[in-house]
Formats: sequence, C-alpha cells, structure tokens
Amino acid sequence: MTGITTYGEKRLVLISGRAHPELAANVASELDVEIVPTTAYDFANGEVYVRFAESVRGADAFVLQSHTAPINQWIMEQLIMVDALKRASVKQITAILPFYGYARQDKKHRGREPISARLVADLFKTAGADRLMSVDLHAAQTQGFFDGPVDHLWAMPILVDYVRGRVNTENVTVVSPDAGRIRVAEQWAAKLGGGPLAFVHKTRDIHRPNQAVANRVVGEVEGRDCVLVDDLIDTGGTIAEAVRVLLHQGANSVIVAATHGVLSDPASQRLAECGASEVVVTDTLPIPPEKRFAQLKVLSIAPLLARAIREVFDDGSVTSLFDGNA
Amino acid sequence: MTGITTYGEKRLVLISGRAHPELAANVASELDVEIVPTTAYDFANGEVYVRFAESVRGADAFVLQSHTAPINQWIMEQLIMVDALKRASVKQITAILPFYGYARQDKKHRGREPISARLVADLFKTAGADRLMSVDLHAAQTQGFFDGPVDHLWAMPILVDYVRGRVNTENVTVVSPDAGRIRVAEQWAAKLGGGPLAFVHKTRDIHRPNQAVANRVVGEVEGRDCVLVDDLIDTGGTIAEAVRVLLHQGANSVIVAATHGVLSDPASQRLAECGASEVVVTDTLPIPPEKRFAQLKVLSIAPLLARAIREVFDDGSVTSLFDGNA
Amino acid sequence: MTGITTYGEKRLVLISGRAHPELAANVASELDVEIVPTTAYDFANGEVYVRFAESVRGADAFVLQSHTAPINQWIMEQLIMVDALKRASVKQITAILPFYGYARQDKKHRGREPISARLVADLFKTAGADRLMSVDLHAAQTQGFFDGPVDHLWAMPILVDYVRGRVNTENVTVVSPDAGRIRVAEQWAAKLGGGPLAFVHKTRDIHRPNQAVANRVVGEVEGRDCVLVDDLIDTGGTIAEAVRVLLHQGANSVIVAATHGVLSDPASQRLAECGASEVVVTDTLPIPPEKRFAQLKVLSIAPLLARAIREVFDDGSVTSLFDGNA
Amino acid sequence: MTGITTYGEKRLVLISGRAHPELAANVASELDVEIVPTTAYDFANGEVYVRFAESVRGADAFVLQSHTAPINQWIMEQLIMVDALKRASVKQITAILPFYGYARQDKKHRGREPISARLVADLFKTAGADRLMSVDLHAAQTQGFFDGPVDHLWAMPILVDYVRGRVNTENVTVVSPDAGRIRVAEQWAAKLGGGPLAFVHKTRDIHRPNQAVANRVVGEVEGRDCVLVDDLIDTGGTIAEAVRVLLHQGANSVIVAATHGVLSDPASQRLAECGASEVVVTDTLPIPPEKRFAQLKVLSIAPLLARAIREVFDDGSVTSLFDGNA
Amino acid sequence: MTGITTYGEKRLVLISGRAHPELAANVASELDVEIVPTTAYDFANGEVYVRFAESVRGADAFVLQSHTAPINQWIMEQLIMVDALKRASVKQITAILPFYGYARQDKKHRGREPISARLVADLFKTAGADRLMSVDLHAAQTQGFFDGPVDHLWAMPILVDYVRGRVNTENVTVVSPDAGRIRVAEQWAAKLGGGPLAFVHKTRDIHRPNQAVANRVVGEVEGRDCVLVDDLIDTGGTIAEAVRVLLHQGANSVIVAATHGVLSDPASQRLAECGASEVVVTDTLPIPPEKRFAQLKVLSIAPLLARAIREVFDDGSVTSLFDGNA
Amino acid sequence: MTGITTYGEKRLVLISGRAHPELAANVASELDVEIVPTTAYDFANGEVYVRFAESVRGADAFVLQSHTAPINQWIMEQLIMVDALKRASVKQITAILPFYGYARQDKKHRGREPISARLVADLFKTAGADRLMSVDLHAAQTQGFFDGPVDHLWAMPILVDYVRGRVNTENVTVVSPDAGRIRVAEQWAAKLGGGPLAFVHKTRDIHRPNQAVANRVVGEVEGRDCVLVDDLIDTGGTIAEAVRVLLHQGANSVIVAATHGVLSDPASQRLAECGASEVVVTDTLPIPPEKRFAQLKVLSIAPLLARAIREVFDDGSVTSLFDGNA
Repeated sequence: MTGITTYGEKRLVLISGRAHPELAANVASELDVEIVPTTAYDFANGEVYVRFAESVRGADAFVLQSHTAPINQWIMEQLIMVDALKRASVKQITAILPFYGYARQDKKHRGREPISARLVADLFKTAGADRLMSVDLHAAQTQGFFDGPVDHLWAMPILVDYVRGRVNTENVTVVSPDAGRIRVAEQWAAKLGGGPLAFVHKTRDIHRPNQAVANRVVGEVEGRDCVLVDDLIDTGGTIAEAVRVLLHQGANSVIVAATHGVLSDPASQRLAECGASEVVVTDTLPIPPEKRFAQLKVLSIAPLLARAIREVFDDGSVTSLFDGNA
Repeated sequence: MTGITTYGEKRLVLISGRAHPELAANVASELDVEIVPTTAYDFANGEVYVRFAESVRGADAFVLQSHTAPINQWIMEQLIMVDALKRASVKQITAILPFYGYARQDKKHRGREPISARLVADLFKTAGADRLMSVDLHAAQTQGFFDGPVDHLWAMPILVDYVRGRVNTENVTVVSPDAGRIRVAEQWAAKLGGGPLAFVHKTRDIHRPNQAVANRVVGEVEGRDCVLVDDLIDTGGTIAEAVRVLLHQGANSVIVAATHGVLSDPASQRLAECGASEVVVTDTLPIPPEKRFAQLKVLSIAPLLARAIREVFDDGSVTSLFDGNA
Repeated sequence: MTGITTYGEKRLVLISGRAHPELAANVASELDVEIVPTTAYDFANGEVYVRFAESVRGADAFVLQSHTAPINQWIMEQLIMVDALKRASVKQITAILPFYGYARQDKKHRGREPISARLVADLFKTAGADRLMSVDLHAAQTQGFFDGPVDHLWAMPILVDYVRGRVNTENVTVVSPDAGRIRVAEQWAAKLGGGPLAFVHKTRDIHRPNQAVANRVVGEVEGRDCVLVDDLIDTGGTIAEAVRVLLHQGANSVIVAATHGVLSDPASQRLAECGASEVVVTDTLPIPPEKRFAQLKVLSIAPLLARAIREVFDDGSVTSLFDGNA
Repeated sequence: MTGITTYGEKRLVLISGRAHPELAANVASELDVEIVPTTAYDFANGEVYVRFAESVRGADAFVLQSHTAPINQWIMEQLIMVDALKRASVKQITAILPFYGYARQDKKHRGREPISARLVADLFKTAGADRLMSVDLHAAQTQGFFDGPVDHLWAMPILVDYVRGRVNTENVTVVSPDAGRIRVAEQWAAKLGGGPLAFVHKTRDIHRPNQAVANRVVGEVEGRDCVLVDDLIDTGGTIAEAVRVLLHQGANSVIVAATHGVLSDPASQRLAECGASEVVVTDTLPIPPEKRFAQLKVLSIAPLLARAIREVFDDGSVTSLFDGNA
Repeated sequence: MTGITTYGEKRLVLISGRAHPELAANVASELDVEIVPTTAYDFANGEVYVRFAESVRGADAFVLQSHTAPINQWIMEQLIMVDALKRASVKQITAILPFYGYARQDKKHRGREPISARLVADLFKTAGADRLMSVDLHAAQTQGFFDGPVDHLWAMPILVDYVRGRVNTENVTVVSPDAGRIRVAEQWAAKLGGGPLAFVHKTRDIHRPNQAVANRVVGEVEGRDCVLVDDLIDTGGTIAEAVRVLLHQGANSVIVAATHGVLSDPASQRLAECGASEVVVTDTLPIPPEKRFAQLKVLSIAPLLARAIREVFDDGSVTSLFDGNA
Repeated sequence: MTGITTYGEKRLVLISGRAHPELAANVASELDVEIVPTTAYDFANGEVYVRFAESVRGADAFVLQSHTAPINQWIMEQLIMVDALKRASVKQITAILPFYGYARQDKKHRGREPISARLVADLFKTAGADRLMSVDLHAAQTQGFFDGPVDHLWAMPILVDYVRGRVNTENVTVVSPDAGRIRVAEQWAAKLGGGPLAFVHKTRDIHRPNQAVANRVVGEVEGRDCVLVDDLIDTGGTIAEAVRVLLHQGANSVIVAATHGVLSDPASQRLAECGASEVVVTDTLPIPPEKRFAQLKVLSIAPLLARAIREVFDDGSVTSLFDGNA
C-alpha cells in the first residue's frame, strides 16, 4: 500500500477574545495550558483585526468570548477569530459563549421581528464553528438553533453549593421573580433540601389580570430566609423590586442568585440599595470594579468551563459533569 | 432588447395529503378552489406513492397535511409531496402543518437526546419547502428552527369566540392545567373580559416540593364557571385530573378548551367521564367518530387557514389576522 | 507551542433501531461488541423518542435500521437517532440500511412524481449521516443520490454459496423473472460454473408485443434444475408465476433466490404454494414466524455487515470483500 | 402602505455556448427570438471568456450547450455562462444539455470510481442553474442527481414519425442491440403498430454464458425490415456489428435510429459500410460535414426544445408534450 | 385547471438602519417613497432590536446601512434586519452597503489571519440577503466573495463632475497617493481631459528600497493644480502628508477627492491643516458636524443609489448607469 | 463503555492527474512515497475516466493537477478525481493546483462577466475538496474565494536563490513590467540586497496618458544588470517588449524571472529572440521540449510542494516555510 502512515496526535488549543481576559486566564490555568498568543486590536474606524502568533494547524480549538458590552463588537471579533482558525486549518472549532448574546430574542413575539438567537447560531456556523459551548441558555430551545452539537453547561450546582453555606437550609424559601421561572426554583429547592417555594407577580394580580396592582408574593415568606433565583440580572429592576416586596412581606433575609451578571446600569445601584443581604452571580460576564458593590459575590465559572473543555477534548462525557442530566 | 416579454401571472394551488381530507376540503371550499387532483397510495410494504394529475408548474403550492397517527407516515407523505412539487417546477412551496408533529421535542432535556422538532423543520427544508404554516406551536421558539418564513397562526380567537357564548363571562375563571401555561391563561382571561385566573399543580405542593400530595388549585374557583385551557390534549390524563380537582374544589362547571385534539387513547373516555361540561378543540387533527363523545365540540380551523393562505398568496398580511400581534 | 497534545484514539459504537433487533444482535456478536444501550419508544400519538444511555462523544457510530413495515416509522426513527448522535458529538455517523426504503422510486416514470430514493438520501444527509451502507440497491445509480460515500455490499456471494450446495451445478439453469434482470442472472450463472440462462416474459410475447399472452420462458429449462434470481421479493406474484411457468415448461425443480425478503402479504402463501423446492433470502429484513413457511431458507447477512463495518472502522477496504469488484 | 408597486413582467432570453450554434439558431428561430448577443472566446492558454452584450436582469434565461468534443471545454463554458448569468441578476437559469455529458458514468461499477453524472449535476447547481433540461438521458435515474427540477424530453416521437414514413409497418421488426434496451424497443414497436421484437447478443450465447460465440439474434428477422434502436451511437462498433448480424440472418433491410449521434471516430465509416439502409439521429450534437455519410439522416430536435422552453416560460406543461407520460 | 390565477404585482420597499438616516432619507426622496416605518433600539446590554411596522410580504426590499463607527453594531443591525425581512416573507432582499465594512481585509497578508471581507459577505448570505449593492469596493475582487449578484457602483463620475468645475483642466495633474492606485488616477486623468499623472512614494525611494527617505513625488507637479485621488480617507495621515509633499514640490494647489470619508480621528484636523484647497468626498458614510471643516465638500451619493435601486427593481441595467462599464 | 477502541493512525496518499506527471513524480520522490496507482483515460467522445487501484479509505489525499492546456480537460479530470476520492471514504482531500486555472478572471471588469476564479473554487468545494494548495496566485484575494483553508505557497525564494547566483548583486536593478507589480519588484530587490527598482510603462506616457507613445522605462537601467519579474508569462508579448526597451535604454543584461511558465504560442519564440540572457521559471506547468529554448531555465517547484504537503500532513506550519510571512 502506498503512502506514509503515522500515528495520529491531537492537540487542544485555547484562544481568547478581548472581552473577558480574566476568565480566559482562569480557564487556561485550570487546564494548565497557555492561551495561544494572539494579536487583536481595532482599526481606527472600529474594524477588528486578529492574528494568531503560532501555528494551530490540526488542533482542536476552543475560542472563548464573553458577550458583554459592546456586545456586537465582541460577537464580530469571535466570528472573525473563528474565520481565521478555519482558514488556518484547525481540525475542529468550539466557540465558547459563556453568556450567549441575543439569547432572549428566541422567538417572534409579533410579526416582522427577527429571531436573533437563531441568527447568531447561524453566523457562528457560517464562520466555521463546529460546536457551541454555553452556560444556562435563556431558553433551552436555543440549543436547537445550532446545526451541530451544543454543550449546554449548568451553573446551578456552583451557585447552590455556595448558597448552601450561607443559609440555614431548614429555614429557606426559594423564590422565583415571576411565574415563568418556577421550575428553576423547584430545582433549587430540591437541591437545598426541599424547602418551600414562592414567586412574585410583577404587574398584576393573578386573580384580577386587568387590574394594575402592586407586586405580590404567592407563597409563605414571612420569617423565612429567601433565595431569589433567575438566569440573569440585566438592569436589575425586577429583581430589586422583588427583594423589596419579599422584605415587605416579612422575609427574614433575601439572597439573590443568578448565573449571568449582565448588570447594565443602573443594576448595581439598584441591587446595592434593595435590601438583599447578598447577590451571587458567576463570572460568565466580566464585572468591572465600578460595577461591584458590597453585597456582590462573584463565583468563578472557569473550573466548570475547563472541565467541560477537557471532556470534549478527551471524548469524555459533558453530561457526566451534571449527574447524567445535562 | 432580445427575448420575449409578457406580463407575469401567478397561480395558487392547494394540495392535500391523505391524513385529514375533510380539513382540506373545507379549506378548499373557503378558498373557492378545487384541490389539485392527486394520486396517493401505499405500496404493499408501506412505501408511499404520490403523483399530481395536472400541471403545477410555476404555481404557489400550499400542501396541507395533518400530523395525526400514524404520524411518521403522514410526515413522510408530506415530504414526498414537497419533493414531487419541487421537481414539478412549482414556484414556491408552503407546507401547512396545522399540528406540527414532534413539536414537543424542542430541546434536549438530558444529554444524547435528539431535538426532533428542529429535525422536522430541516427535513421540510431539504425536501424543498420554502415556508411553513402552522397553528399554535407548543413553544414559539420552534419558529426559529426553520430557515425561512413561518406563518404562525393562533386558534385562540376562534376558541374564545365560541366559549364566550357558552359562559357567563361575569362568573368565569380561566384555569391553567400547570404552572408553565399561565401566560396563555392570562391572554384568555383578558379576552373573556378580565375574570380571575387559577392554575393546578399536578404532582406536588408548591410550598413543599418534595412531598407528593394530591393536585391542588391555586386561585379561587369555588362557585365559578371554569375554563381550563391548554395547547393540546394528548392522552387527557392531566386535563381530566384537573377537571376533577376543580370540581372537587367547588367549581360550578368546567369547560376545557385546547387547540389540538390529539386525543390518543384513552383520552376520549377520560374526558367524557371527568365531569367537564364541554370539551372544545379545533380540527387541526382529524377526530374520527369513535373518538367523539357527547361533550366534545370541534370548531373548524379551515376559515383561518384559508384566510392565511389567501394573505400569503396576495402578499397581504398574516399578522393583520390577529390584530397585529402574530 | 501552547496547548495539550495527546495520542488520538478512536472508538467504534454500534447502535440499533427497533425494526430488526435480531440482526443488530447478530452483527454485534460478529463484531464482539455490545450495542449501545438505548431507550426508544413511541409516545401515545406515535412520535418516536430515543436516547442513548452512555456517552458516544468522538465515536464512529454505526446506526443499523431495517426499513421494514411500518417503514415510515422506522425511517423516521433512524433519522432521529442520527440527529441525536450528531448533537451528542460523535465523530462520524454511518447509517446502515440493509434494505434501502423507497429504493424502487428512483426516477420519474411520469411527470409530477417524486424521486423518493433521492429524497431519502437527502434526509439522511440532513439529519447528519456522513456515510450510508446498504445491500444490493435496486438500481446502482442510487449510490449517486447520496452526497458522500456509500458502501454498497453484495449479498450474491452468500446466496450463491448456499445454492451451490443445494443443486447439481452440471444441471443448473439460472433464470431471470424478467428481461431487465438478465445481467444479474449472468453473474449467477458464471459463479455457479457456467450453466445456461433463461428468462421469463411476464405479460406479452416478445415477438408480438401487443398481443396479451401467457408468460413464456425464453431459454431451455426442460429437465433442468432452475435457480430463479431477483433482488427482492415483495408480494411474490411475479416470482410465484414464474415458478409455475418454469415447472409447466418441464423444469425439474426451481429454487428461488433473492437478497431482500420483503414478503408483503400474500407473498408467503403464494411462495409456499407455487411449487418452488426452496426460497432463499437473507435477513436484511426481519421475517417473523408467521411469514415463514416450509420451503423458506433465511441466510444471515450479519457476518457481511460486521466485516464491512470493521473495514470501514479500520480504514481497510470494503471493495476487498468482493474480490475488488464492489 | 409605503413603497412603489407595479405590475410584474417576465422575459425569456435564449443564450448559446459555442458548441453547437446551428441548433441554437434553430431553437431561436422556432421561438421567434434573437439569441442574446454574447462575446465568447478562448484565451491563449485555453481559458474561456464570456460576456453578454445586453442586460439580462430579471430574465428567465435558457442556456443551451451541446456536450460534444472537446466536451470538457464546452461543459466549463456552460458553467461559466451560468455563473455570469447568476451574477448578472437573472431571475431563473435553465441549463439545456441536449446531450448530457458524462451521463453514462452514473454509478460505481467498481470501488474507487467517480459518479461523474452526479458530479456534473452538482457543478451546474453550484454555478447557479435552477433547472436542467435534457433529452433522452442514458438512465432515467440521472434526473435524481440534480437537486431541482429536470425537464426530461423524449426524442422518440420525432424518430418514430420519421421512420414510420420510411418502412412498411406491416413488415417491421424492432431490434435492440443488446438485452438491456428491450423496453425501449417495446415502446418503438408499440408506436410502429405492434410488430415483432428481436435483440442481439453481443458476445456470448445466452444459454452458454462462458462460451465466446459470434453475436446472435433472438427473434425472427428473416425477410423483415428491421429498425435497430438505441439512445446513442458513439464509436458505432456495437451497432454496425448488429446490422451485419441482422443482414446475415436474412433481414430484408436495416434502419438504425438513435437520439444522440456522438459519432466518435470511426463511427461514420463503420456505419456507412455496415449495410444499413439509413441511419437516423437527431441534432442534439453537432454533426460536421466530414462526419456525414450518404445513409445518414439528421432530424432536428430544435422544435421540441423550443416548445419545451416555451412551456417552461409560460408555466405550461412539458409533460403535455408527450401525451402525459414525461 | 384548478387553483386561483391572478396577475402578479411587485413592490419596492426601502428600509434603513440607524447608522445614516440622512442618506436613507435622501434616497427615499429621490425614489419618491417613504421608508418603511421601523422600530429599532438597543437593549440595556447593547443588543439590537428591530421590527417593521407594516407588512413587507412579497416585496423587493432594499436595506440600507452605512458601515460607520460603531461599525460592528451597524453590521449586526443590518444582519438582524435582513433576518427579520426573510422571516417576514419578502421576495428578495438587497443589502445596500454604501461603504462595505472590513473591505480592506480582503486577503491573508500572513498566515493565521482572517479574510474578514469574505466573512462579511457570507454573514449577509446566511442572514438572507439575495444581492449586495455597494460603492467603490477597495478591491474589485470582493464582488467574488458574495455568492450571488453584486451591484458595484462607481462614485467617480460624481466626483469628477464636481472637480471639473473647480479646476482649470488645462493645468491639472492627477496624483495617486501611492503606487498601487495609479490606474484609478489614470481614469481620473482621462475623464478630466488627459492631463499628466504623478504619484507619491510614501516611505522609501523607489530606486533605493532599503533606504528610508522622505516621501517624494514621481511626475511633474510644479506649478500644477493637483487632484489627489483615493478610494477612502481613514485617519488621513497618508493623504495629508502627500498634500504637503506636493505643495513642497511646487504644486500650485491641491484638491483631494475620495469616495468614502471615513475620517477617523484625527483625520479632520490633519486635512484642515495640510494645505489642501478642498477635500471632496461623498456621503456614503455620515459626516457629523464636528468632523466637518472649512475645506470639506460632501457630495451626495443618494441620486446614484436611488437610480441603481430603481434599475434593479425594474429589471433595467445598472451597467447602463456607467456607460456600459460597470 | 461499549464498543471497540483503538489508537488512530493516519495515512498520506499522493494522487496525480495526467497533466504533469513529471512534477508529480518529483514530488513523490521528495516525499519518498509512491503515487497511488491510478487508471485514467479518455473515452472516445472525450469524457474522462479515472479509478484508483488501491484503497484510500481514511487517508489524507493530496491530488496534484497542473492547469495547463487543454486546461478545461485537466480541471474536469481533477474534479472527477476529487469526487472519486470523496466517494471512496478518504478523510480529507487537498487539491493541489500549482497553477490555479482562471485565476486572472478574479473580478468583473464590466457588467455581465463571470468571476471564473470564484467559480473554480466553488467547483472544487462541491466536488469534495477540503483544502486547496496553490503557488503564487495572481491576486491574493483569490484565497478568499474558497470556503476553507488555502495553503498559498511562494515560489519567489526559489527564484531569488537561483538569480542571486547568476548576477552581480552590486549591479542589479529589479524591473517590473508594469506599474501594477511594483510591490513584487520591491520584495525581489530587498531579497537581492537592496538594489534600485524600475518599471516599464506599456502603452502610454504616465505624464501624458492619452498620447500613445513607445514603452518607456521609469528608473535607472543604463549599465545595470536587470532582473525583470512577473507572476506568469503567457504569450510573452509584454515581457519580450519590456526586455527590448530595457536593452534599448542601455541595460547591460536582462534576466527574466516568473513563477508560472504558461508559454502559450508564440511565447517561446518571442522570449528566445528578445535579447534576454536568461528566462527563469518554475515547473508549476509542464514545459514540453518543443517549448524549450536556449535561454530558458526551469527550476523545480517539487521540493516546495513536498515540504508543504508534509507540513499539512504533520499538522506543522506552512507559514514557517516562508519565515513566518505566508
């Protein structure tokens, strides 16, 4: 038989955009690799330039970018990085979106709207991504927007582990900030030992839908240590209001927990002043010093990302990281 | 300038699979067209054969198929019809799925599951469909699974109009069979004049999640005329149980309303015996005589489909059929 | 150079749909592997659900499904399995269709027909299949319908080996049931030692095409041991009639041999009663007890499939299994 | 409503490559159009250059090219023309391949062969063709190689009409040059009034497959006026030999009829000398003067192409040109 | 024949992103249409939202967006608009990019770079654009990056017409700012009446490449009225330096002319102070008041865009707008 | 865990079309491999047939074809080979085009032209090529025409190394045959030690564009040893004329150097008689004996191709072959 035959090797490389270098550094440290040295800057008119300083031919490339503001710039930078990797003959590209930009625009609420979450999936496919990895998508259906495998990670175990140490689980009530998120609250409650649930109605009485009334709590919160849970905190209005209502209803304390700390203005001020004893998020998005406040606790998502990357590279099981449920 | 120039014409043709000929006949009647004469049968080993008996070249073809049991056969038949139309030089193909098969499998609940609702969208795209039309998708995100326009119709106005004439709107409570559907109930309540809402917890006390208790109702139903709403009724277990609980809690009466009457066995028996005064569905799916029971009321979706088809053909607005909201 | 470098491994996994578990078990046994444990069932309305119980990440997956009745269900199940594998990050998917459903609809006989065999190829491509493996396609052109490699296996050597031991090759005449299959008969004759050929005209005299006459045999069969060969037996009408004509023309005995035993009703009865001394098929399709009859002999295709799978996995040569001819 | 609304027009344009200008001129004449003025030439190294001299924006373009020698050049020229049309904003492109190059390589006879007929279909799709039109494909399955509509025309009625006037239909026997084409001969016989059939075995006795014997005729030809039919004549070896055998067996006369006159050397000499009274082909391929010989009759395919083009443009029915059978 | 047949209409709609509303307004005014009323804003975290307030079903949509800073935001907004149009059933989408963002990144200068100009073309294709329209691409090859028609407009006639009225054409010398743009200067010179050419070497003596010397002028400029031409002015460094060198070499005056006024800081200051008598650009990009300076003249590209849009809509000829050369 | 796990191997195979067997043999020799034994011939009507005589399943295949005359035949042959490889289950296909046919048609100079260089890229993608490898593309933008990695090799180092030994670098002037190629000349000059540059104007005086004058040289060439550089020599008219002008201007000697020796008639005669002391090209294209002349020197590109192939196969760095610049 003609030709040259050798044993195959495979190589993992980690690449980072400029949006959240601390997270990339932490993931690299967890994996015990160096990030591929990369040149990335903006031209005068805002166009992004990237180049990798070493060969990545044949590698399994993991490209990490946090979709924080200016979100469109960072999405474009990640797309451009994926294009450069594709043209540099990498074997496989996994785009890691710890927070998936535009995930909330996942359906047409009315005619003539876009479905931007699907568009983002298609843009990554077009640029050359073979797989997406993301954390706590706003709707699980978004996995179906990508034509290929999506490794969907759950931050809840990290958040729960932390919160468990901060509350008396005998006295905890898990609270959802609106009716649409009760199932997440149920999972929290189960993991915290089976305490009661409650939820807040934002704008109207559930029994009198057309009467605008103050927010009200469904469930017993008086004297309870409340844990208010959501997938993300953007401007913080709903969450801060929910905390106030809970305290007004006699809650003993309120801890807020969410995966993604978007924290658009004036979220930090609202949360700092709302009365919550602690606000716990992960670092899927960068949280600069000026957005930090006394009650904010930021947990690192890096170990989870690193373990998932390693499972992907080793043909292991990402599902196994979540007790077979992911 | 060389060539031959003429004015363009356009032609609408309506085509029907074998799953639900009554619905197709009604849509044709509403549109005042004949269905394209079509040969369709099964070979001895179950393979489907189709052929259109007249030319459809250049036409805007609307291919209607109801995804009822045997569901995989009818999906394949519709795909084969789309293929035949594509190869017969039609200009544009709209696949009409009044009930979208596999719509409930719209995400991975656990690792190594399919996302069959996305797969179905891709199969229709591959066969040659340019557009989908469907009624009340289980999750609105499914629109994003198709790479092209999806005309998503709402049956709620039809159901509401009927129910409004059957109840004293002053005494109505709209009820959701579980916590995940409260927003639909809210829309119902608003359209019925602003009555109160309630919902049923299926398997556990919301305040004691790990204790298996009987279903319970949240909201006031005693002495009320209840309207229990959902997108579909499959085996009817959840719905029948909810009706019982409502009556047990003192409800005056219960009308059940849902868009899709899947009515898999033993749904009809369960619903007939559960105590509901009326069960209202549309005919997006065929309901054969043996599944009908005294309390069942089937409303026709044909006028809505016909109007939507005509708007599509005339480059009108499907959104306008729903007060600008679809 | 940054990153982590390891040696590459590769893993073969075998997956089976529900259509023909015995064949899958036999292939697994030949390969000395376990089938990937899989959950597969139907929902009440007929929708198929599947999930793999162990990780298949990075594997070379071979998904076996026999396109037997209810054929559309089993095709959909296999498509759904392929989708689930794609989303589970397998490296490569080979869909094994021992009998390729819809293979007979490989061209438009008349305007406005589908080309369903092409559609099936495209559906598998869309779901995520990288390669097809099939046995004795009705027309070899069907290989060209798939945009990728097709491993086309031949069952003839297995059938010939068996028949050789059942006849006196000095006295054999190979017979084709119609004029379109003479080349297959030629190959049979060559492998059986060079005996004479014959064929049957089904509905008209070749010299008087417009005169409907009884079937007649072209070639000498009187006193010969006839082997009647075809690619598949569906309802058995043509074959049974051919057997009768051969015996009527004085044939000493008739053995029927075909790759695919579709055996749609009333094939078994017809074949049992037609006078053939033996009917030989392979188990590309399941043949349940109620379809079996005294003269039926079923040969196992499993060893061939297993060897082909192993060649594919080992980057060997499938062509080599057939003396360089496949 | 904003915007500008006008009535739509549509325009047919006919474009021709350089392979067979006479055919294009005849089609244009039948359609009563001018061919779009086009610049086309070869650069010194053989690269093809094309440009259209007038705007074709929004037109339905029909691009005619005959795949004659040098066949690869003419295929590339047609692909380049399709590319230029696509980039010039035509609305729809129909590539007309009166003779479809590489149509005989429609399957893998052995491992590691291409399926060039599928490749050609894909190349046209990639370049931008929306539809193919061709005449008498070698295998009808080739229609399924193109992902879109294929208008498959039949030249047989033209050939039959001519031959009917040249023979005494009472005394005609239709002959196939080998066993694989008997069905075509059957159709001929039916159209010529139901005379008898015969066929020639090229290299071996059908009853003694491994004995190399002279060609022999199956069927009665003595004293008959034979019509020998095939889809194409390439080097003419098989046909000329068949004519000789027929005459040797006592045939009164032999007319040869085939759709495509490929006539590769030394076909013309062979046919001129074989004893056929007439050789009838169409002009799907150009037949230069040096290939013409006394007995050759060339019928024009132009009227058929023109009618089919007009049906396509007018959204009429191509099937109707063939009594509903195409 | 079944169905409904009507005459076809077609409708042009103009849509504008938020990057350059004045240009869109001017194009609309030239076309005498209203822009489709559109809602477009940013969410708190920078995600873009768009919705069209009236139906665009069946329309030919032209979506205008100027790729100015923040360039990635405006590209994403245009992509999202295209997605929304696609899902709203428009018939055809032309994305108008008066200045094509990332056009300068049209090749890999070194290994592991992206080709962002190709990526942008692919992103628009993926979102749903059928055609691109752009003005004076940095390299004409960029047309080939899009898989479909590109209408490439030339602003030069507009610029030349203006400059002709500002200079004594008898005394003009056209100057290229570097050696790579001499052909553009030749075209200018030809249109201005055939005056002499010159060009500036930016960093080294052409005859002594490795010796860093001051910029120098090749050609005679002493006492001449110079017209310095380029495709775009970004930070203005090269242009301002070229003006200084020309004046230093004795030029009588210098007019600068370029299609795209990117004018990134500190371009305006540099140009205002460099000694040019006039700087002429078009408004393909918005030029806010703070970037304007005394010598700046902005010509409107709107009439050209409007005429091209109308030609596209009317199936006319865009080439005809440029004397048959475009 | 189920299945079979083994270590992965990988295999390089080299395949050659018929256009330039010497080059393939030399590359094979450099790599120390045998070329895969291949059957390739033309059918009577010019259709190409290919088949590989040994299994290539799972291999990394490199398919070398030189796009020399008859260029369309060799492009088609290479496409057909790629198709055959794809269907033979190779793992990855790199099409090597030492000279990329149609590379000069990389943009529309006028309306209604094709962009054939993009078309060629798409044809290879469609046939199944995963990567292209080429040498000195006419415009670097052509890399962006392929949707995947392109390994773009530079022949200049080979040419420079040779020329350096043939001239007194102290007395060299590098000359570009026209203004558009000055940057290449700059790179040459830098590599040859920093001598002066010059260029030739072909048809008009740069300072008097509309006056047709004889070609003239810009730069000092009197008494210098000139090296005239270009990417390719086609008919040789421009180059031969440039040599004459240089000698007429007093050049001491002229060496011509170009990567691609297309040498269409009458290039060889022109070059032999133009006065150049040496004409240096590489063998990216075959140069048959009848095109050779006394002053022609052909350098082998085979070592460069072999090293690039090996880097690709070993996941090394092609960029590293060019000091990090490619």
